[in-house]
Amino acid sequence: MENNGNTAILKIHCPDQSGIVARVTDFINLHHGNILAVDQHVDHDDNLFSMRVEWELSKFNLPKEEIAPTFGKFLGEPYQMKWTLNFSEEIPRMAIFVSKASHCLYDLLARYQSGEYNVEVPVIISNHKTLEPVAKQFGIEFVYIPITPETKAEQEKKEIEILRKHKVDFVVLARYMQVLSKDFIKEFPEKVINIHHSFLPAFAGAKPYHAAHKRGVKIIGATSHYVTSDLDAGPIIEQDINRISHHDSVKTLIQKGKDVEKIVLARAVQAHITRKTLVYKNRTIIFN
Amino acid sequence: MENNGNTAILKIHCPDQSGIVARVTDFINLHHGNILAVDQHVDHDDNLFSMRVEWELSKFNLPKEEIAPTFGKFLGEPYQMKWTLNFSEEIPRMAIFVSKASHCLYDLLARYQSGEYNVEVPVIISNHKTLEPVAKQFGIEFVYIPITPETKAEQEKKEIEILRKHKVDFVVLARYMQVLSKDFIKEFPEKVINIHHSFLPAFAGAKPYHAAHKRGVKIIGATSHYVTSDLDAGPIIEQDINRISHHDSVKTLIQKGKDVEKIVLARAVQAHITRKTLVYKNRTIIFN
Amino acid sequence: MENNGNTAILKIHCPDQSGIVARVTDFINLHHGNILAVDQHVDHDDNLFSMRVEWELSKFNLPKEEIAPTFGKFLGEPYQMKWTLNFSEEIPRMAIFVSKASHCLYDLLARYQSGEYNVEVPVIISNHKTLEPVAKQFGIEFVYIPITPETKAEQEKKEIEILRKHKVDFVVLARYMQVLSKDFIKEFPEKVINIHHSFLPAFAGAKPYHAAHKRGVKIIGATSHYVTSDLDAGPIIEQDINRISHHDSVKTLIQKGKDVEKIVLARAVQAHITRKTLVYKNRTIIFN
Amino acid sequence: MENNGNTAILKIHCPDQSGIVARVTDFINLHHGNILAVDQHVDHDDNLFSMRVEWELSKFNLPKEEIAPTFGKFLGEPYQMKWTLNFSEEIPRMAIFVSKASHCLYDLLARYQSGEYNVEVPVIISNHKTLEPVAKQFGIEFVYIPITPETKAEQEKKEIEILRKHKVDFVVLARYMQVLSKDFIKEFPEKVINIHHSFLPAFAGAKPYHAAHKRGVKIIGATSHYVTSDLDAGPIIEQDINRISHHDSVKTLIQKGKDVEKIVLARAVQAHITRKTLVYKNRTIIFN
Repeated sequence: MENNGNTAILKIHCPDQSGIVARVTDFINLHHGNILAVDQHVDHDDNLFSMRVEWELSKFNLPKEEIAPTFGKFLGEPYQMKWTLNFSEEIPRMAIFVSKASHCLYDLLARYQSGEYNVEVPVIISNHKTLEPVAKQFGIEFVYIPITPETKAEQEKKEIEILRKHKVDFVVLARYMQVLSKDFIKEFPEKVINIHHSFLPAFAGAKPYHAAHKRGVKIIGATSHYVTSDLDAGPIIEQDINRISHHDSVKTLIQKGKDVEKIVLARAVQAHITRKTLVYKNRTIIFN
Repeated sequence: MENNGNTAILKIHCPDQSGIVARVTDFINLHHGNILAVDQHVDHDDNLFSMRVEWELSKFNLPKEEIAPTFGKFLGEPYQMKWTLNFSEEIPRMAIFVSKASHCLYDLLARYQSGEYNVEVPVIISNHKTLEPVAKQFGIEFVYIPITPETKAEQEKKEIEILRKHKVDFVVLARYMQVLSKDFIKEFPEKVINIHHSFLPAFAGAKPYHAAHKRGVKIIGATSHYVTSDLDAGPIIEQDINRISHHDSVKTLIQKGKDVEKIVLARAVQAHITRKTLVYKNRTIIFN
Repeated sequence: MENNGNTAILKIHCPDQSGIVARVTDFINLHHGNILAVDQHVDHDDNLFSMRVEWELSKFNLPKEEIAPTFGKFLGEPYQMKWTLNFSEEIPRMAIFVSKASHCLYDLLARYQSGEYNVEVPVIISNHKTLEPVAKQFGIEFVYIPITPETKAEQEKKEIEILRKHKVDFVVLARYMQVLSKDFIKEFPEKVINIHHSFLPAFAGAKPYHAAHKRGVKIIGATSHYVTSDLDAGPIIEQDINRISHHDSVKTLIQKGKDVEKIVLARAVQAHITRKTLVYKNRTIIFN
Repeated sequence: MENNGNTAILKIHCPDQSGIVARVTDFINLHHGNILAVDQHVDHDDNLFSMRVEWELSKFNLPKEEIAPTFGKFLGEPYQMKWTLNFSEEIPRMAIFVSKASHCLYDLLARYQSGEYNVEVPVIISNHKTLEPVAKQFGIEFVYIPITPETKAEQEKKEIEILRKHKVDFVVLARYMQVLSKDFIKEFPEKVINIHHSFLPAFAGAKPYHAAHKRGVKIIGATSHYVTSDLDAGPIIEQDINRISHHDSVKTLIQKGKDVEKIVLARAVQAHITRKTLVYKNRTIIFN
């Protein structure tokens, strides 16, 4: 649904109870919000309710700053909801971490520059200088922060400072070949998106295409997930695959994999930017 | 969501207005219905609202026969809804029409016999005797109704009689190679499901694999749709594809196509049986 | 390529050397064989050459029984080939092992009965009686061989006897829920085809759909492979996938998975029947 | 297969006859060429043989300039071959035509700049100025050639001059929204690659996503093909698809379509650059 004015986006997660959808949509209707999209999901195994609703604010009769407290008081608290409220006019700020591979970076920046992503990209951080020219080409600040096992803790602190300075909301690891420490991840819970170049949980860890070739699989994949302290085990946002054959060498697997990686990452980033992801129990709900 | 008792399934289609979801879910909650699934869609271009909701009847405090009149009075009429109410304990009755190709028939009957489909299959009708042994093997009545251009009108009347006698709710054309007349289709509006062996609207009409081979496509497909009086132009329920190459002859296209056809048809039939399809403007909504 | 007469199918595997393709095709041409299909592959990493060639025998001027010794003497031995020679008129004999799930069995039998598979199915073996009616329905002998940890060795001997009695060439495990012993597998090296209900190597072992649901993957898959003594680690013949979402429960994963399983298994069996598979280094080459 | 030195790439098309593969591979072996890749196809319906073979030249004992005349004399003429000989060290020169949509252009230029494509891109031509900044960003000459029905013939002459000046070998229409005249196409037979934003032959012509939305398809696609004088009817090089649903508007179809378009075009361009395409009877063979 196309909409040019400001919208509110509410994501809810709570124990399932009768009438939640009715209460939430009533709240919006009563205040003259025009609902643009609503999607909900009930996990009956765990009795958990999730919902995303987006509405126009042009005729909404609550001032923006009163929506959250009002909603919290009348619905959030009584229903024991975990909820977030965002506005489409708040453009999220995204940092990109890269190493040497360029395909995901080019793809993200092309989407950013062409206006496909409603996002700001203030900074690109890398442990190698390789992609500095690409950052320059797109007019984005590039910060080189080399990492060694000895300097890692210290260098990550620098990274966090830079992210704070740029008021970064979330981080995209666009084939960044360093494992982030638990301390770093704690600073950005459910805010770091990684692309792993395999169909997780198959071939977690390093060199997945070598492993895939050795195992003789007939299909390769890529997985975008939120980073948690458990390597390659965070909640999966998106996956896709590509058919291969015995003709493929490790080299052509890597080449074919790049296309899957960049598309999968791009979709995951778009889902995050448009606030369509919700994480629970190490899984994601991807709303319509 | 698994449920063993009887459930009500309500499908709604009406002009979009504030608060419909709230009103409908309130109605169910007020009468102590436990909602198992709800999915809605708004077509903002046409300002049309669609919804499917399914709830348990075990604690519902309206008798089955009063649900429809009550709902109609309080919600259906005021909101100008087109709506249908079904109960899961009403097992739909499905007739299968076939000609000579057996792959879709075997697949449907295997699903039926193994209990995958919540359906009854009282009769198989064919313009050829070829598949009579398959019907017998599965213990289903087989009626041979040959068709020529001259006898078509008369023979279709016989078919309709047979369908009525068996109280058939919907018809599946499992590679039935006769075009049904408009009169026949009128008797079963949105109740005849066809599988067309191409990725419609490409290669409508006869011999789609020959046409696909000649055109040199790299992917073939199959399309399941509700039959309308406009040949191969009815609302599409499901489509899928299979990758091919220059190595494929018409013969191998036909062979590879069979697998796509039967899976696509099976999914469409399942969507219909579980009342997850809704037709409007010659398109379908497929609810979750 | 369609051909109704008898054909010879030669599969070759050897160290790569100049001129092998030329020598082999010359051999066939010299003896007036009309080549219907030829496909080769060179693994440059390991310097290994593989080839499959099929030719018509109607004008071939070597008697059938002399082809193998002649080829072996003039080409097989000098080039250190591992090779097999088959004739299309030799119909392979396939046994099917099942437990309780019926979808793969129905699918294989429908293909067999409709003539899609150029194969004989003399016997179905099961550790449960559940599917005996399906075997009867298709007129195939069904042998019930229950297995407990204590009786396994003994019962497998019985199975091997039955397979020998029926001159079975290869075995298809159509969701057979017993792990075959190493002794059994030794009897049928590269002759036992399994379908594993996950995208291997992800979710090897028991209950893959439960594991997939818990991990929150966005795509499920199935893998058909030759059985080796290493559980779920044999050479992969075919894989395919199906997209899922957070709406899917374990139950719907299982249901959606069935369709992928049966199609993947069917393709793998067809590749085996038509002698298009070649195993080396625990991987497969699938010829055109 | 990786190879850093110069290689020869021979593509052959001729009536099928006994021993062609043997003769061609013998020719290469005799002159000490190390074959890196060989793939052939026989169209038995039309009795046509096609082959692509690539070999290393480091030890080849014919000078480069003598390969073509020697091959032609001893094999090309006697076997009535149509054939082409290329060398991997000859980098093809590619021009890109664009209008306003940027996604394919970014994708092609990222592949070019990162070294994925073994190609030179001397010039980008457009009937709009919109993408001039992208061309500049990647350091490539941009020529603005507006087209009106009146100026078309004249402007196309200018384009051809520019292409000649830059010694362009082939042209990629990266969502170029002008139909090229027959005269233009005659200058570049099988040398102009287009991306059409639908799954051809479905939705040929203008506004395919609008048509797809109206028809209610469940899958959209993209098709890359060689341009012929018959609009959207040239030989298909590559196709791929993306699953959609009733939630998709024309706007989201367009957005989802972009990803398919750029990947399909990129694969087709790569196949052309590596001389893996062969056109006959308005179809393509895509060699391994």
